[in-house]
Amino acid sequence: MSPASSTPDLVVVGTVAFDDVQTPTGLRADILGGSATYFSVAASHFARVGLVGVVGQDFPDSFRSVLVRHGVDLAGLETDPNGKTFHWSGRYEGDMDQAHTLTTDLNVLETFSPQLPAAFRKAPYVFLANTDPSIQLSVLDQLESPRLVVMDTMNLWIDIARERLFEVLARVDGLMINDAEAKALSGESNLIAAGRALVERGPRFVIVKKGEHGSFLFSRTRLFALPSYPLDRVVDPTGAGDSFAGGVMGYLAGANAQRVTDVCRAMLYGTVVASFTVSDFSLDCLGALDRDQLDERVDAMRQFVTA
Amino acid sequence: MSPASSTPDLVVVGTVAFDDVQTPTGLRADILGGSATYFSVAASHFARVGLVGVVGQDFPDSFRSVLVRHGVDLAGLETDPNGKTFHWSGRYEGDMDQAHTLTTDLNVLETFSPQLPAAFRKAPYVFLANTDPSIQLSVLDQLESPRLVVMDTMNLWIDIARERLFEVLARVDGLMINDAEAKALSGESNLIAAGRALVERGPRFVIVKKGEHGSFLFSRTRLFALPSYPLDRVVDPTGAGDSFAGGVMGYLAGANAQRVTDVCRAMLYGTVVASFTVSDFSLDCLGALDRDQLDERVDAMRQFVTA
Repeated sequence: MSPASSTPDLVVVGTVAFDDVQTPTGLRADILGGSATYFSVAASHFARVGLVGVVGQDFPDSFRSVLVRHGVDLAGLETDPNGKTFHWSGRYEGDMDQAHTLTTDLNVLETFSPQLPAAFRKAPYVFLANTDPSIQLSVLDQLESPRLVVMDTMNLWIDIARERLFEVLARVDGLMINDAEAKALSGESNLIAAGRALVERGPRFVIVKKGEHGSFLFSRTRLFALPSYPLDRVVDPTGAGDSFAGGVMGYLAGANAQRVTDVCRAMLYGTVVASFTVSDFSLDCLGALDRDQLDERVDAMRQFVTA
Repeated sequence: MSPASSTPDLVVVGTVAFDDVQTPTGLRADILGGSATYFSVAASHFARVGLVGVVGQDFPDSFRSVLVRHGVDLAGLETDPNGKTFHWSGRYEGDMDQAHTLTTDLNVLETFSPQLPAAFRKAPYVFLANTDPSIQLSVLDQLESPRLVVMDTMNLWIDIARERLFEVLARVDGLMINDAEAKALSGESNLIAAGRALVERGPRFVIVKKGEHGSFLFSRTRLFALPSYPLDRVVDPTGAGDSFAGGVMGYLAGANAQRVTDVCRAMLYGTVVASFTVSDFSLDCLGALDRDQLDERVDAMRQFVTA
């Protein structure tokens, strides 16, 4: 961990990984991945981001440089001297609507207990990427007075730590979750009913990610739908959800905005950022993006949804 | 066939059927169904509709009255004295995203060759519901000077009459098709690429219906997305696509509008009308709908898609 740094606008606690990815268009091994990686690079277009995570001794400086080049504050990136970096290997087939996990080597993640640098604890915007809900609770306990905290999760925790997950949910402002997970967590087979039921669990809003079918926002007063950006070619969907979250949270942190209506507008940015991510492997497209290209797609996106 | 009538704003050529439907919420036998039935009742909220189809001697007056009560002109509804009405039987499971056909008894449809009443041939708006493309061509040959002709189709014809289908496609203004069919007909596995490829086949616009995921419009200059109306309970999805088409075409015919931008707005109405259809079996909900309820959901729909 580096010495104390200034307080970022936005802190993400998540994974930094080596990915092996197979899609109908190609195969890549040991590429830079992980929820916190995609999230922070996506968010870096809008706000100053601090990353909390862990890597092993095998994590190369070249990958670290990718994050630094995007202004990501790595004061919260621990290097575990006794282990290897988290490694995920997966395959997508056909229309690539689903990742088939081949192997997951947790490695250094197995014993990781995130400790936020002092400066990070004061961050106004915080994203808890998918991890054990007990770890998410320990991060919540470290925060001083956040303005907006949003969490992600996955089926594993819904299956084995459901009650603990509801504890986290009651303490955050927002939940981002995919459609199958929203149904599983709520016990509702209808997605609209599922989103509404999850809002009753405490958060001000729930964003349901539907992959190529876009996203929904649910709140007590609002229901909002956005399609995904229309792409005639998807190369690798890995990181789409985390990039979307990074775009949403980055936009909100950059604008210092927290209202539900701001979150709806932020989803436009999240959607556009995610569309760059899936246009190539790893950060090859997202990492090379400039603000003009981004604004151009935001304009196209607005036309796409306006009758 | 009845004697000559006045020219409707909108003519639909399609099926009138008895349906047996099984969904997770219930089971109904011998209910009123068919593409032309759903279409014409949906469209009747906006325009004067003429129906072209065939039924058998077994078709009851009570069903005929449902259509008449909605002002549907039945001058083009033939009664075949030698046969029974078309009968479809299907089942939906889980999230009801797909109909599983149990039986299809074509009956009087087997020998049906639609002859449009003289007054119908002058109709400015025409919808060719799913049927053999050769029949669709024969209907096109009977039209005098339509302003807007839109067609539907299904996988069967894509598999066995592909070239004939492309012949029809080159002669119509618009195509409405579901997502799997759009991919099959175009040979593209990406839906955006599929929609664009189909526009190249001749029509001014292609509307791809994605069920609970809403719809897309493709034209040479425009790409437009609309979610489906957010319902927390679906009773029976049968007729959703035909009701959507009826709402779209009814709105256009009622407004005498044909531009692509009008079609985008019309999709809002189609979406709303379809949401009533799926809220109960057969026409139980759609048939009882008044214009206020409809306008209320159109307003809700606009808010639903506005950031």
